[in-house]
Amino acid sequence: MGGYQYPATEIKFCLEHIAKLKRLEAQFPNYSDDLLEPILSEAGKFAEQCVAPTNRQGDLDPPKMVNRCVQETATFKPVYDALQEAAWTTLSAPEEFGGQALPRALEVAFNEGVQSANLSFSLCPLLTQGAVDAIETHASDELKSTYLPNMISGKWTGTMNLTEPSAGSDLAAIKTKAEREGDHYRIYGQKIFITWGDHQMSENIIHLVLARLPDAPEGVKGISLFLVPKYLLDENDQPGLRNDVYPISLEHKLGIHGSPTCVMQFGESEGALGYLVGQENNGLMAMFTMMNNARQSVGLQGLAVAEAAYQMALEYAQDRKQGNVKGVEGKVAIAEHGDVRRMLWQMASMLSAMRALMYTASVEGDLAKIDKSHLVRNELYTPIVKGWLTELALEITSTSVQVFGGMGFIEETGVAQLYRDARILPIYEGTNGIQALDLVGRKLKADKGAGMAALIEEIATDLASFAQHDEHVKALSLQVKLLQSSTELMLDQQVNVSEAAFDYMMQSGYVLGGWLLLKGAQDAAADKAWLAKTKFYFDHILLRANTAAESVKGFKGDQSIPNVTLLNK
Amino acid sequence: MGGYQYPATEIKFCLEHIAKLKRLEAQFPNYSDDLLEPILSEAGKFAEQCVAPTNRQGDLDPPKMVNRCVQETATFKPVYDALQEAAWTTLSAPEEFGGQALPRALEVAFNEGVQSANLSFSLCPLLTQGAVDAIETHASDELKSTYLPNMISGKWTGTMNLTEPSAGSDLAAIKTKAEREGDHYRIYGQKIFITWGDHQMSENIIHLVLARLPDAPEGVKGISLFLVPKYLLDENDQPGLRNDVYPISLEHKLGIHGSPTCVMQFGESEGALGYLVGQENNGLMAMFTMMNNARQSVGLQGLAVAEAAYQMALEYAQDRKQGNVKGVEGKVAIAEHGDVRRMLWQMASMLSAMRALMYTASVEGDLAKIDKSHLVRNELYTPIVKGWLTELALEITSTSVQVFGGMGFIEETGVAQLYRDARILPIYEGTNGIQALDLVGRKLKADKGAGMAALIEEIATDLASFAQHDEHVKALSLQVKLLQSSTELMLDQQVNVSEAAFDYMMQSGYVLGGWLLLKGAQDAAADKAWLAKTKFYFDHILLRANTAAESVKGFKGDQSIPNVTLLNK
Repeated sequence: MGGYQYPATEIKFCLEHIAKLKRLEAQFPNYSDDLLEPILSEAGKFAEQCVAPTNRQGDLDPPKMVNRCVQETATFKPVYDALQEAAWTTLSAPEEFGGQALPRALEVAFNEGVQSANLSFSLCPLLTQGAVDAIETHASDELKSTYLPNMISGKWTGTMNLTEPSAGSDLAAIKTKAEREGDHYRIYGQKIFITWGDHQMSENIIHLVLARLPDAPEGVKGISLFLVPKYLLDENDQPGLRNDVYPISLEHKLGIHGSPTCVMQFGESEGALGYLVGQENNGLMAMFTMMNNARQSVGLQGLAVAEAAYQMALEYAQDRKQGNVKGVEGKVAIAEHGDVRRMLWQMASMLSAMRALMYTASVEGDLAKIDKSHLVRNELYTPIVKGWLTELALEITSTSVQVFGGMGFIEETGVAQLYRDARILPIYEGTNGIQALDLVGRKLKADKGAGMAALIEEIATDLASFAQHDEHVKALSLQVKLLQSSTELMLDQQVNVSEAAFDYMMQSGYVLGGWLLLKGAQDAAADKAWLAKTKFYFDHILLRANTAAESVKGFKGDQSIPNVTLLNK
Repeated sequence: MGGYQYPATEIKFCLEHIAKLKRLEAQFPNYSDDLLEPILSEAGKFAEQCVAPTNRQGDLDPPKMVNRCVQETATFKPVYDALQEAAWTTLSAPEEFGGQALPRALEVAFNEGVQSANLSFSLCPLLTQGAVDAIETHASDELKSTYLPNMISGKWTGTMNLTEPSAGSDLAAIKTKAEREGDHYRIYGQKIFITWGDHQMSENIIHLVLARLPDAPEGVKGISLFLVPKYLLDENDQPGLRNDVYPISLEHKLGIHGSPTCVMQFGESEGALGYLVGQENNGLMAMFTMMNNARQSVGLQGLAVAEAAYQMALEYAQDRKQGNVKGVEGKVAIAEHGDVRRMLWQMASMLSAMRALMYTASVEGDLAKIDKSHLVRNELYTPIVKGWLTELALEITSTSVQVFGGMGFIEETGVAQLYRDARILPIYEGTNGIQALDLVGRKLKADKGAGMAALIEEIATDLASFAQHDEHVKALSLQVKLLQSSTELMLDQQVNVSEAAFDYMMQSGYVLGGWLLLKGAQDAAADKAWLAKTKFYFDHILLRANTAAESVKGFKGDQSIPNVTLLNK
């Protein structure tokens, strides 16, 4: 097998021609367009040569508990060291804390490679990035200057501690306690599903923990965010005494075996010492900061894992000889068979649509830092990026297994791992059901659909300006109208919004995918593969937006489907 | 958890009101309608109480190689003994060999329970059944009387040995050799992916093996079928000397861990002694006999595993409290949330459609034994049952994981196992791509679409006779027309048939599902759940037939999508 190849050319195309990265030059003094190619080239080498060879070992030799510590997969630390040494973790961070102050979109491009190459490993620096964002946006200057430089350099890593056994999607139910003690707090409680909650790759681990003060109001308005280091800092701000926070067990999971998913115990004895991030009872706000990025990152993970699986299938299909085809002598590669060809083009066209949306959203995220209209757009994209990309990732990893036939079901082949790994993506950082509700209950509602109307308007304007591919323009114009109708149904609550939200999210995704493929196609006269993928998408995929639109309409009224008690035997 | 519950009521409804089982009374003297309820009741008890408790152990403690033998999961043998003791294996077998001569449809109903309860285990008696079919139809009277009674009683089990490393979907490439030696043959070669190729649950294992004689013509016309017992029979027809056939390794698979998937070596030293089944060079015909049943069985496995996963999700969703709902005080069960309700009804409505088709096809299979028109229908159903049911099984097991949220990704929960187990179903017994080609290349072509035309005609006649649910009748009438159009496109080769076949197969499945749900709804005035599932299907699922029809049209011309070489970087 040739192994994973970083799709630098397509990422560059998406960033330049679809997401219009050039707009960021003015905003990011450290960035100029001539940096793009060398960054992508180095990112590709890192992912292909350094990270990818460790993926299978993570699956086979998952982390273990050794005396109250988690020992990660053996090959991972050298990769982590290399990541840190090459300063990849500092790409988008502010210069004042040692960062390179480059656009986040470039970090996304780097992350795509690492996530394709080893999803389990990638989660460690990714969660650190989320913690850095929350601290940078909400913490005091003192906490920032004390913790950020080492977290940005990668010397220390970070975690997010939200979930408890009875508080998953519903954070209002959080029970972990925080007690005031001088200038700090003591934290007591148990958190579950803590990704990379412990390991030996970094000198310290900075846990961000949601907890409740004794006098806090009930529900989500009584949640505060605390910074809880694994090792308390000494007078020189170096890791010193062990804090009272420990991993107590590891989950046995369907996938991402290489990523330790910990049950964390805070305050078994004297209480875990923590520092308040932001205001008391205002923790949810800080969590949302982390989450917006984290959710788009999970969408990126969907793209990345699906890309890796697709590449394996594409290579195998051209390698594996089986059966005959009219007019060709001897056995042919299975890629010559119509149904296999269909599967490969289907995956390829979906992937390009996903990638186009991913990078478009990420550039909007960068623009959002100085312009509120981009913020609205970015936040509208977030649940679609998370939901739509991860749903398609399940489909693509499954189709990749299918291309392999019986070999795909054998673990040694490797594609089964990607199928297992991908299954977490529609679940974590808010299930896709939660994403759909975020899209219609929060994003649409917040501005009474103005942000969505602006997006639909932009697509319509684009379509009017496209000089080529008239047939596709026509098809998409119809879909845009249907999306507008669905949006109205949701806003006017003519349908049961919570039942219909998922289909609406998927409808939005399919329409956006078509728009961005077509946008790319205007600039891709010489890129026959892009044009063929666009055609495939319009002939075979875009129609799903129709089905979703009809399904949305089907959820008429207050509650269109009965309670599930009717289903009990 | 309450554990798996055999859906006896719905199976009975499907058999009586949709598949019209009563028609079989005349044909099967041993069968009368009053047997149905007691059989389903006992089948349910067996699946729930005896089989289901072993499922997880099969996943955790898979079979192992111990000195050239496979030692199966420890808890499986008692289940196998109980199966044999209750004579479940004899249900549909002919009386002359110790069978009960009951309709195969009842065996399907029994098998559904066992497959839901433990898919891995179920494969052992299932493959025996396939081997029995092939022997009964094609072997000499002597082979029949020597082998069938013990195979039917379950004392001995059977296997199918088709695949070789270079001969998967393409059986023409088979290299295993057979040499004549007096009244028997010596077999030399290696077979892979042999399900239950070895184990210790039965006194003997009867391998059916495809191999090639020295003077055989090339390709599929040079393949013969041989019966190769693990233990040669002594003068009393009892297992005696060990034959020269051995398992040499076991695969590490994504799912169905409890089922040993063996590499089998025939003839390491003196050659494995085998007996010809049917005529020389006519082995493929016998294999097709086994396959037609086996393929429908795999469809049944899709239904069964999906049912098990759905039941877990339904129970969990009513148990797990999380979040609030307007107008309800306190935390609610997640089943109260619209999106979870949607997922559960979606699964339920798909499952009823799948079950309706499964039992309809199985009764057609029984009728086919005396009436050729039913044979055509049964054979037309086969690829759709296999393909459509197993594709939906992937979706349903995935949705079940999703209902569990984070807990679904934890292996201890159990639903992840079903997600993994289900992934083999679109692959084995002919990939779903092969099924689609079988549907259009073999079944449609064989009678120039007459069989499909008769089916479409029957649906249209039914629709005209339905006195209720006018709106659904109208919607389905349109879909039937679209199916007719797609059929014409396929028959006239106006589209690239091999590219379009998969969508055509799925389109057929969605239309048949809608038809049979609606057929049931005519008799289900008191069954609110059936009516609500039918409505859900028509509002949210049936539309996929549209999308598939449009996609079929998109594969215009000789080759509508380019070669995949264009996709290489």
